Amino acid sequence: MAFSERVARLKSSLIREILAAAQRPEVMSFAGGLPAEPMLPKVEWAEMPASMGQYGMSEGEPALREAIAAEARTLGVPCDASQVLIVSGSQQTLDLASKLFIDPGTEVLLEAPTYLAALQAFQLFGADCIAVPQEADGPQIDALRQRLQNHKPAFAYLIPTFQNPSAVRYSEAKRDAVAALLDEFGVTLIEDEPYRELVFDDGSATPIVSRLQKASWIYTGTVSKTLLPGLRVGYLIATPDLFPYLLRLKQSADLHTNRIGQWQALQWLGSEKYRGHLAELRDFYRIRRDAMQAVLEEHFSDLADWQVPQGGLFFWLTLKQPLDTRTLLAPALAQNVAFMPGEPFFIDPDANPGHLRLNFSHVAPERLSEGLKRLAEVIRQAQAS
Amino acid sequence: MAFSERVARLKSSLIREILAAAQRPEVMSFAGGLPAEPMLPKVEWAEMPASMGQYGMSEGEPALREAIAAEARTLGVPCDASQVLIVSGSQQTLDLASKLFIDPGTEVLLEAPTYLAALQAFQLFGADCIAVPQEADGPQIDALRQRLQNHKPAFAYLIPTFQNPSAVRYSEAKRDAVAALLDEFGVTLIEDEPYRELVFDDGSATPIVSRLQKASWIYTGTVSKTLLPGLRVGYLIATPDLFPYLLRLKQSADLHTNRIGQWQALQWLGSEKYRGHLAELRDFYRIRRDAMQAVLEEHFSDLADWQVPQGGLFFWLTLKQPLDTRTLLAPALAQNVAFMPGEPFFIDPDANPGHLRLNFSHVAPERLSEGLKRLAEVIRQAQAS
Repeated sequence: MAFSERVARLKSSLIREILAAAQRPEVMSFAGGLPAEPMLPKVEWAEMPASMGQYGMSEGEPALREAIAAEARTLGVPCDASQVLIVSGSQQTLDLASKLFIDPGTEVLLEAPTYLAALQAFQLFGADCIAVPQEADGPQIDALRQRLQNHKPAFAYLIPTFQNPSAVRYSEAKRDAVAALLDEFGVTLIEDEPYRELVFDDGSATPIVSRLQKASWIYTGTVSKTLLPGLRVGYLIATPDLFPYLLRLKQSADLHTNRIGQWQALQWLGSEKYRGHLAELRDFYRIRRDAMQAVLEEHFSDLADWQVPQGGLFFWLTLKQPLDTRTLLAPALAQNVAFMPGEPFFIDPDANPGHLRLNFSHVAPERLSEGLKRLAEVIRQAQAS
Repeated sequence: MAFSERVARLKSSLIREILAAAQRPEVMSFAGGLPAEPMLPKVEWAEMPASMGQYGMSEGEPALREAIAAEARTLGVPCDASQVLIVSGSQQTLDLASKLFIDPGTEVLLEAPTYLAALQAFQLFGADCIAVPQEADGPQIDALRQRLQNHKPAFAYLIPTFQNPSAVRYSEAKRDAVAALLDEFGVTLIEDEPYRELVFDDGSATPIVSRLQKASWIYTGTVSKTLLPGLRVGYLIATPDLFPYLLRLKQSADLHTNRIGQWQALQWLGSEKYRGHLAELRDFYRIRRDAMQAVLEEHFSDLADWQVPQGGLFFWLTLKQPLDTRTLLAPALAQNVAFMPGEPFFIDPDANPGHLRLNFSHVAPERLSEGLKRLAEVIRQAQAS
């Protein structure tokens, strides 16, 4: 069978395998990024017009595009509804952007670590990925400047607000510095913001795209983390030089996003009901974050270092005594505990051992301590042997 | 702005422009393939479990995969639920297959004419398209053999049952002959069947994939033509050598298909209610087909030749005095009539003038005669000048 060249770059997804293993009800899974089941809002469908069953526009539902543009403007993103494209979940934005920009050998600039599924999407299309090390308050600015001087990336893909996996929120100063550098070198920014609304403090985090003067940009979001991921409704907002291409690529990919989910999203976005739901969500996740922090201090303080995340869904642990955390997966699953090894979040996994990504939203509090105790024990045994 | 090489192959879609123009309520549109609004079934959502809001499996909902495999087996397609992948509408199968097979210069075998959006998807990825002329009962078999002798296509993409745009249903003999040739030359078949259920007679049309002995295949279908296109739920069934790659490509494209639509589709597939709905649909469309045939005989018998379609949604007209039908579009729209020019359905549009695709499902009967009369007049004026 003669497949395309890109199929050789199609990685077996560790995520799929871990999530499949984590489906077993006895498994305590810190692996995924699933919203907590009790916080999935109850939705009503009775009022949905029958017309939502018909084919729709590739751009998305006009009223939803308006609502998303209005929300983005309140964040300082200068945009109009005509720049909004509704997509079948945020992952599709990565697919469309890959199609728009990436030929085999095209350079792309990423954080190290970065979102695994983005890395895989870009590499599938043949991207040559260049990494900028992540610090507690955002990327190393000197390293970013150096990369931009030495390379010509088609775009920079950044997750500045509660990054997956590192939980980092860029400081205001670093947001300004990144914007200035992208403007200086004329590099397009893809700013991915699935976690913006899951915030536990009053910290400020104005989007980087709102600070750009010249560079083109794509700003991307989703309702998957705050409403219902099963709807598969996300969006991108793009500068007018990029939008028409992304729209045609969307049409070629799947004609348009499902209208049922779009209609449901529209019932929530910008509403009082949604604001109330978000407030409940933040309280719920803050409590889970705090519970996880307490248990981590108990079982991991001698094993790892970490920052307390101020938003998002993850703790990012750095082992004091690094080892390839992929080797921990089988023994952890044997103890009915799942987690995400840190290595696959890096362009060069073997050079970056010793991180674990732990989700704090999914495991019920009553099983948290037992799960993390077992995981710590697995690590201790691996380090002892 | 440095885009990927493929963006240069991203055509401005005539379909989008025509459909946008056809949105005006005063326009009588024979252009799209939209189901008739009165035949969109009333659907219920009250029983949907809350769990459908959560992330799902990339493969699709297990029960829906089982139901689709069971239906396919009754058609003679040898398959198991593990070979079924739920996709975000049939168009996504074309995107995934393109990713799996097509590098720039990869040869692909198509019917002439073929489905416009398939042609565009394959060309976007750089396919070198090879065409086999379509006859009233399927492709020219001698031409097919000759193409397979002289070329090495990665796959053959065929729409054997009420083809879009030509409305052709392959004869049983041609189905056998095509299967034998693909087996002989070891060429993968992509068999696209959106219109199978919209049939107006008792003619037989067993899928070609069920006749293959050796060649790999992808069989693709959708609920868009029989249930609700706005759900964006389609499926593919693939031989086990192809399935794992298609699954990973699906995951990279959009993680999984929306579960809301999948749940709704499952309420219908294989049920008594669905069989009843399909029977009503066939009666409704048969009546519309007959009405269109009567009006065409009145206004077009001196202008064009056509076969009466035994299924699907389209008449395919061949002008007795050929001209570039794309030039008719502006004057037709000025008369508030939309249609699909035939040229874009060919690899070499300029070499294939003089066809029109007319949808018979959408325009209400009371406007049909006026619409087609205006269109005939536009053609007469163009031919006179």
